Amino acid sequence: MAVYTEITDGELSAFLAAYNIGELLSFKGIAEGVENSNYLLHTSGGFYILTLYEKRVNADDLPYFMGLMEHLFQHDIRCPEPVLRKSGEVIGQLAGRPAAIATFLDGLALSNPTAANCKSLGEGMARMHLAGLKFRGFRANALSVDAWRPLFSKTGSGVDAVEPGLRDLIENELDFLEQNWPDDLPLGVIHADLFPDNVFFLKDRLSGFIDFYFSCNDMLAYDVAVCINAWCFDVDGLFNPEKAKNLMAGYQGVRKFNSDEIHKFSILIRGSAIRFLITRLYDWINTPSAAVVTPKKPDEYIDKLKYHQSIKDTAIYGAG
Amino acid sequence: MAVYTEITDGELSAFLAAYNIGELLSFKGIAEGVENSNYLLHTSGGFYILTLYEKRVNADDLPYFMGLMEHLFQHDIRCPEPVLRKSGEVIGQLAGRPAAIATFLDGLALSNPTAANCKSLGEGMARMHLAGLKFRGFRANALSVDAWRPLFSKTGSGVDAVEPGLRDLIENELDFLEQNWPDDLPLGVIHADLFPDNVFFLKDRLSGFIDFYFSCNDMLAYDVAVCINAWCFDVDGLFNPEKAKNLMAGYQGVRKFNSDEIHKFSILIRGSAIRFLITRLYDWINTPSAAVVTPKKPDEYIDKLKYHQSIKDTAIYGAG
Repeated sequence: MAVYTEITDGELSAFLAAYNIGELLSFKGIAEGVENSNYLLHTSGGFYILTLYEKRVNADDLPYFMGLMEHLFQHDIRCPEPVLRKSGEVIGQLAGRPAAIATFLDGLALSNPTAANCKSLGEGMARMHLAGLKFRGFRANALSVDAWRPLFSKTGSGVDAVEPGLRDLIENELDFLEQNWPDDLPLGVIHADLFPDNVFFLKDRLSGFIDFYFSCNDMLAYDVAVCINAWCFDVDGLFNPEKAKNLMAGYQGVRKFNSDEIHKFSILIRGSAIRFLITRLYDWINTPSAAVVTPKKPDEYIDKLKYHQSIKDTAIYGAG
Repeated sequence: MAVYTEITDGELSAFLAAYNIGELLSFKGIAEGVENSNYLLHTSGGFYILTLYEKRVNADDLPYFMGLMEHLFQHDIRCPEPVLRKSGEVIGQLAGRPAAIATFLDGLALSNPTAANCKSLGEGMARMHLAGLKFRGFRANALSVDAWRPLFSKTGSGVDAVEPGLRDLIENELDFLEQNWPDDLPLGVIHADLFPDNVFFLKDRLSGFIDFYFSCNDMLAYDVAVCINAWCFDVDGLFNPEKAKNLMAGYQGVRKFNSDEIHKFSILIRGSAIRFLITRLYDWINTPSAAVVTPKKPDEYIDKLKYHQSIKDTAIYGAG
C-alpha cells in the first residue's frame, strides 16, 4: 500500500502525449499493490490506472505480463486492459521507471470471502487457465521449488527467533518437496498470486482479476493450491473444508483435474504454503523497520504448512 | 500522503446505505492530504471522495468546514461539494472515525506555478473571499498570533540543533509580531492553507480549491500573505516579485486592498512565514522517525522569514 515514485503534472502530461486517451483532468496516487506505484488517472477519455514498475519487477518480464493481460481480455477474461501507446507499444518510461496504463476495472476485493465466493473464484480461475492455453508467451515460475532453498538461505540467522525450530521445519520440508515435486502435471499460464486482494467481485459475482506481476508458466493445479491456502482458511486460522470443496467444485466444473493432479495435490498445497512462508520470512527478516510497507508476519504460513503436513486424508481438499 | 485508517468492503457498504449515491463499484485508498485518510469511491452514481477524519482534525469543527464548502459551491466557487446523507446530515461514522463524502473535483495541483497561474490564484481567492462574506459560520484561527508562542514552547530543546541561533530569531520575531499584529483589517472567511497542493488547474485555468480543514474567520489579507509565501518563491528559494505582483493584481482586480491592508501587509507576510515555520519545526522535532508521513524540513520557512525581515521597500510585494 504505497506510492514509491512521485510524479509531477508536467512529467505526466508529457508522458500522456504518447497516448490517445485525451486530456489529463486529474491524477491521484492510490494505495494498491505492494510492489509498484499506482496512480488513478482521469482523462477526457475516461478513468485509467497508471503503474510505475519499481525495482522488484524485472522490466524484461513486462511484455509477458502485459501481453497476457491483453490476451486474457481479448478472450473474455475480465482484467485491466493495457492501453496502447501511439507507437503500438505498451511500456513507456516515466520518472525513470518503466510505466504502463491500463483500463480501470470496477470491483471490490473481499475481506471475508464466503464459500459461494470461493466457488466463483474456482470457476473464474479455470476459465482463465483455459484462455491462457492459447497464450504464446513463456515465463518460468521464478518462485517455484528450485528457488525456495536459495531464497531461504538468504534469511540468515534470524529464522529461529521468529519461532524456535522453524529452520528445521523448513529444511525438512524442502527436502521432502525437492524429492517429490511433480513434473508430469498439466501446464499452462497461472496467475500465481490469486489472493483475495487480487480478485474483484460485484455483488457476489466475480468481476475480474488484477495484478498479474507473478504470472508465469507452471502447473495449473499449483494455482489452485495457492488459492486453497489464500482463500480457505478462516480468520481464526482454521481450515474451512466447505470453502475448499466449493473452490474445487467451481474449478472442476470448468476444467477437470486428471488423476495425477488429484493424487499430487497435497504436495502442491504444501509447496504453495512454503513458497509464501519463505518469501514472507525473507521480507520479515530483511525489511528495514522504517520501511514504508510493513511486511506480513510469516506466522500465518507456518501454521498453514504445519496443518497440511498433519493431513492424513487429502480428500479434505476436495480435489476428487 | 497516506491512508491511516483502513476500511473493508463490508464496513463501507454499510456506511453507504445511509446515502443516495447508488451501488458501490470500487474504492481505492488515495494519497492526498497529510491529515486525513481519503478514498476514491466509484458508485453507480459516479465518482466521489470519502474522507475519514483523523485525530488532528477536531470533530466539532467539521460542520464549519463542510458548511463552508457547501456555501462556496452554491456561490459558484469550485470545490468538492459535500454529499448529504439520507438524514440530511453530512458527517457520519466509519471505522471509528468521523467521515464524509464529497463530489470528485477534476484538476491538477501544479508543481511549478507560473506568474500567470499566480494571477489566476489571486482572482480565484478574491472571489472566494467575497463569496465567504455571506457565510454565517464562525471559527477562530487556531494558528494565529496568539497560538504561535505556546506552540513554539513545545518544540523543546532541539530548536538550535536545526540551525544555530534559530531560537533567538523566532523569539525576537514573536516579540515584534505580538506587538504589531493588526487588529483593524477587513475580516472574512479565509482558506488559510492555500498551498499549490490545494489549488487545482486545468490548462492554466483555476478549476477549484480543496482541503478546507484550516479554514477560519480572520483577516482576508492574511490569506493573501500565506499565498505570497507559498507561491512566489522559486524552486531555488529566491523570491519572485513578478509572481507576487501577478498574484496581487489578480486579487485586487476582484477585491481592492484598503490602505491599512497595503501598509500592514509586510507584517502579515512575516506572520504567515512564522506560522508555517513554527508548525513545521514542531512536526520536525516531534514526529517519530518511523512515522508514515515524513515531516517537511523547516528550513524553507526560516529562509523566507529572514528574507521578509530584510525587506526595506515593501512595494516588492505588489500590494499597492
